[in-house]
Amino acid sequence: MPIYQAPMQDYQFILQELLNIYQKPELQGFEEIDPELIDAVLQGVADFSTEIMLPINGSGDVEGCRLENGQVVTPQGFKDAYQQYIDNGWPTLTCDPEYGGQGLPEVVGVFATEMKTATNMAFAMYPGLTHGAYAAIHAHGNDALKAKYLEKLVSGEWTGTMNLTESHAGTDLALLRTKATPVADDKYAISGEKIFISSGDHDLTDNIVHLVLARLPDAPKGVKGISLFVVPKLLINDDGTLGEPNNVSAASLEHKMGIHGNSTCVMNFDAAIGELVGEPHQGLRAMFTMMNQARLGVGLQGLGVSEIAYQNALAYAKDRVQGRALSGVKQPEQAADSILVHGDVRRMLLSQKAFNQGCRALMGQQALWLDEAERHSDPLQAKSAAQLAALFTPVVKGFVTELGFKACVDAQQVFGGHGYIHEWGMEQFVRDSRIAMIYEGTNGVQALDLVGRKLLADKGETLKLWSELVKNLIAANSQQAAMKPYITGLMSAAADLEKATNYIVTQAARNPDVIGAASMAYLQILGITALAWMWTRMAEKALQCLDEGAKNSAFYHDKLATAKFFMGYWAVQTTSLVKQIELASEDIIEFADSAF
Amino acid sequence: MPIYQAPMQDYQFILQELLNIYQKPELQGFEEIDPELIDAVLQGVADFSTEIMLPINGSGDVEGCRLENGQVVTPQGFKDAYQQYIDNGWPTLTCDPEYGGQGLPEVVGVFATEMKTATNMAFAMYPGLTHGAYAAIHAHGNDALKAKYLEKLVSGEWTGTMNLTESHAGTDLALLRTKATPVADDKYAISGEKIFISSGDHDLTDNIVHLVLARLPDAPKGVKGISLFVVPKLLINDDGTLGEPNNVSAASLEHKMGIHGNSTCVMNFDAAIGELVGEPHQGLRAMFTMMNQARLGVGLQGLGVSEIAYQNALAYAKDRVQGRALSGVKQPEQAADSILVHGDVRRMLLSQKAFNQGCRALMGQQALWLDEAERHSDPLQAKSAAQLAALFTPVVKGFVTELGFKACVDAQQVFGGHGYIHEWGMEQFVRDSRIAMIYEGTNGVQALDLVGRKLLADKGETLKLWSELVKNLIAANSQQAAMKPYITGLMSAAADLEKATNYIVTQAARNPDVIGAASMAYLQILGITALAWMWTRMAEKALQCLDEGAKNSAFYHDKLATAKFFMGYWAVQTTSLVKQIELASEDIIEFADSAF
Repeated sequence: MPIYQAPMQDYQFILQELLNIYQKPELQGFEEIDPELIDAVLQGVADFSTEIMLPINGSGDVEGCRLENGQVVTPQGFKDAYQQYIDNGWPTLTCDPEYGGQGLPEVVGVFATEMKTATNMAFAMYPGLTHGAYAAIHAHGNDALKAKYLEKLVSGEWTGTMNLTESHAGTDLALLRTKATPVADDKYAISGEKIFISSGDHDLTDNIVHLVLARLPDAPKGVKGISLFVVPKLLINDDGTLGEPNNVSAASLEHKMGIHGNSTCVMNFDAAIGELVGEPHQGLRAMFTMMNQARLGVGLQGLGVSEIAYQNALAYAKDRVQGRALSGVKQPEQAADSILVHGDVRRMLLSQKAFNQGCRALMGQQALWLDEAERHSDPLQAKSAAQLAALFTPVVKGFVTELGFKACVDAQQVFGGHGYIHEWGMEQFVRDSRIAMIYEGTNGVQALDLVGRKLLADKGETLKLWSELVKNLIAANSQQAAMKPYITGLMSAAADLEKATNYIVTQAARNPDVIGAASMAYLQILGITALAWMWTRMAEKALQCLDEGAKNSAFYHDKLATAKFFMGYWAVQTTSLVKQIELASEDIIEFADSAF
Repeated sequence: MPIYQAPMQDYQFILQELLNIYQKPELQGFEEIDPELIDAVLQGVADFSTEIMLPINGSGDVEGCRLENGQVVTPQGFKDAYQQYIDNGWPTLTCDPEYGGQGLPEVVGVFATEMKTATNMAFAMYPGLTHGAYAAIHAHGNDALKAKYLEKLVSGEWTGTMNLTESHAGTDLALLRTKATPVADDKYAISGEKIFISSGDHDLTDNIVHLVLARLPDAPKGVKGISLFVVPKLLINDDGTLGEPNNVSAASLEHKMGIHGNSTCVMNFDAAIGELVGEPHQGLRAMFTMMNQARLGVGLQGLGVSEIAYQNALAYAKDRVQGRALSGVKQPEQAADSILVHGDVRRMLLSQKAFNQGCRALMGQQALWLDEAERHSDPLQAKSAAQLAALFTPVVKGFVTELGFKACVDAQQVFGGHGYIHEWGMEQFVRDSRIAMIYEGTNGVQALDLVGRKLLADKGETLKLWSELVKNLIAANSQQAAMKPYITGLMSAAADLEKATNYIVTQAARNPDVIGAASMAYLQILGITALAWMWTRMAEKALQCLDEGAKNSAFYHDKLATAKFFMGYWAVQTTSLVKQIELASEDIIEFADSAF
């Protein structure tokens, strides 16, 4: 069975040293946290993830979910584990204290999510979607809806789902057809079929709270005619007790490549009773306000699964003996050297490690921006943070899941033939992590969101805001000899980003289709440059800690070595990507449809 | 169900125009082939693949193989399809006419293999492994063994397997423990357990011919003490009829990520009776002589599955409507534009297309080198061809399967959420093609083979031989304005290859481990440069054909457009790869084991 060791030391480094979250009096609620509390919370999640969630990850994949008499049965152990999960209060971490939450910052929540997703992505999706439903009602529901639903969702007594996709309407929600017809008492009858509904039905809780996009009878066409409804699996009586079954049911389970432990359903709504969340026809806007957080959650899946895949590949590489080092025998006491001596095995592992640690730091930064956007005492600072979080949302989703999947494939490769066999668990990581590139907006959609809505829509203002941070970092360290390898790598990537940005801006005026062709390379350039920025900041902190005589010097030396590798292996990739943008984008658009 | 259209026009272009195989009097046996014959053969395989093999690809994946009372049962339809396969004489194409083969060149055989692998990789492996067993006995068996086995293997009446791997001995066969003890009459008792044995047991034929690596009692340690044996499932009587069951059996079926229709077995040999193939202790060398062909076969899996994945992604992209082009509505008669209007979808498809067609041409060239090595009337030319084929063996295996898998992932991505669902067939292509990166020597081993055995062992002599061909092509076209985009791209990639080669040669003398760290990037640089070479040659031919007023001008214009895209999108990737080699290889080796 795969092993997992929560990267606690990395979390501590990021929270305390890199982001300095314990000295943020300007952020409301941050005064209540301290390292002791946060370490205890994260250690609790680490223990739960490793001891309860990990053991049922592989078995859940093999067994999968099944539909019996119209009800989904989850794999063995899921129901018990879920009960323990809510008994321990894990759903409540970052939720509003008014509804039973602990009010912890996102910057703590992301690392809890990383661990849960690493150890059992399919299981973690049940509370993950619940949090989405909580956030939707919390942000857009009226007081009555909040009173009815939020406490149960925060406690985990009920779970939630998001019902957006229909078979003909995925990326393009303008095409959706599900109908909402008003009936008595502010109630609506919802009818339609939704597909790919994660956690759509299950046996973990008595009730399930479906958030559903549908059209009112008088709705304008397109995305401006979509409203958001809440539709419970069981109707709720006025006294809050559960009533009759609503007319919503799982029509079938999707046959998926992975995340078999999560019940991905086709859902039938047959005049199911629902209530409007927010204003009529404003459903898509309501979904959009939750997008930053939802996409961060999917990005964390890319990171989490990549991390556990790395840990297992490393353990295998140390344990497996096969062949001898090119430079001669390294472990004469064994029949062969461990495969960690082989340059290509080391390359794959180090690539994963540098990617994971860089992404982890970026996730922390992104979460802190989200916290600042919501909690900063200075509205201008809050606004800047919101802009930066919006800019990097397609990066943490699209870039991290794209390369996180690639890292899982590399980790599987370290196992050779054993990586292709179910028993070792590596092929499951590849299958599970694959979906993160697709759902919550495909990575291609993320790339379009980046160049269209984030870069061009504000004329590059937010990108400039961030570029100033990069320039300041470079300026502050330009005289430090020890910082040279990192600054050099960061500058080179940033220069490529600037070239790519100029290309996009120029082409946008000339032929907008061309920027679509360039968008994925652009997303990757921004992602790599962002990681180079995080690695430079981590190197800076590591050098400071060493200068100050920090006890755990090996940890900081390792950070510096990994940062250096990142610059030589990862940061250099922007050079070819910017060439692709400049040389191929127009050819892609000009290529005749008939010639494909 | 996935569609498939055999790329017949591409085959004709490669065989007739690019490689000019019908005017090769210097190659023995080539005088017997003409376009009419070869077109008919390839069309026959195309029809069989599409009509018989493709329909049982998805169902074979779902059903898989099962072990019942010690015998493997293949998925429904496999037994019938196999009977038709041998009734049609498809196993005989490239086999020796002395044993019932048709003696067709490899350069024809590769395209037959591509089509079979595209439509049903798991099924195609049964005859594929049989061909390996045929080749081993043909090259190394004595007359008695040839008489006993070859006709049955050529006709497909019996199938074959290759038994190399043991659980502790994969890449490093020096560690293998299976024993061969002499018994009466040049017979040996073989005992041991082998894992990952493709087509190890099944119900397609009465008998199965296992080629098995084992150690004789007096064997030296390591790879110099391994012998090759042939061990039939059923013993063969002196009159050629089938006798008693031998003591060999499938202990279990491996639980794999993909290729479920192929029976990958753990095989038990319990004093099974076998005969020696070739000389004692020369087993590994015997396997090595078949390596070029076996690895070409695996490379063709990378290409074949990538091709069918591309075709289906393209069909979906044309059919699926979702959103509008960035430049405005393109298909006003529809509720949305087909997703082929989106730049990123076009990018993924064009990347796959350029890769597939480039690889197909390279596969043809590689097969022609193998033919020349065996059939050329001039021994010097034959030797050069053999050297070139050896140099490019790690490329056609390691590079093509690595990027072929990536192409399948991109094709799956075009489908969005539907790509993750079994019904569309795309996720199967990803799972199936994944194994090609692992077996027949992992891609990391291919990269090591390239830098160690192919580049450094002959001091770069073979690489120089090939570089001359590249230089000649450049020189011949340097004055042609129309050739400029292709020549520019090729020259740039070739310059990066030279830089990378210099790095490897320098480091090999200083620290051999470092070349291991650089080897995968080096393999990719050589692969991309080789494709740039093929694309430049294809552009040259396409221009010639257009100059000569060829009828099908659209085909040649499409080739030129794809070649141009290749240079702007693919060829530029060498720039970052050579930087990785120069900047990261040493860091990879210097990184402390304890810091991973």
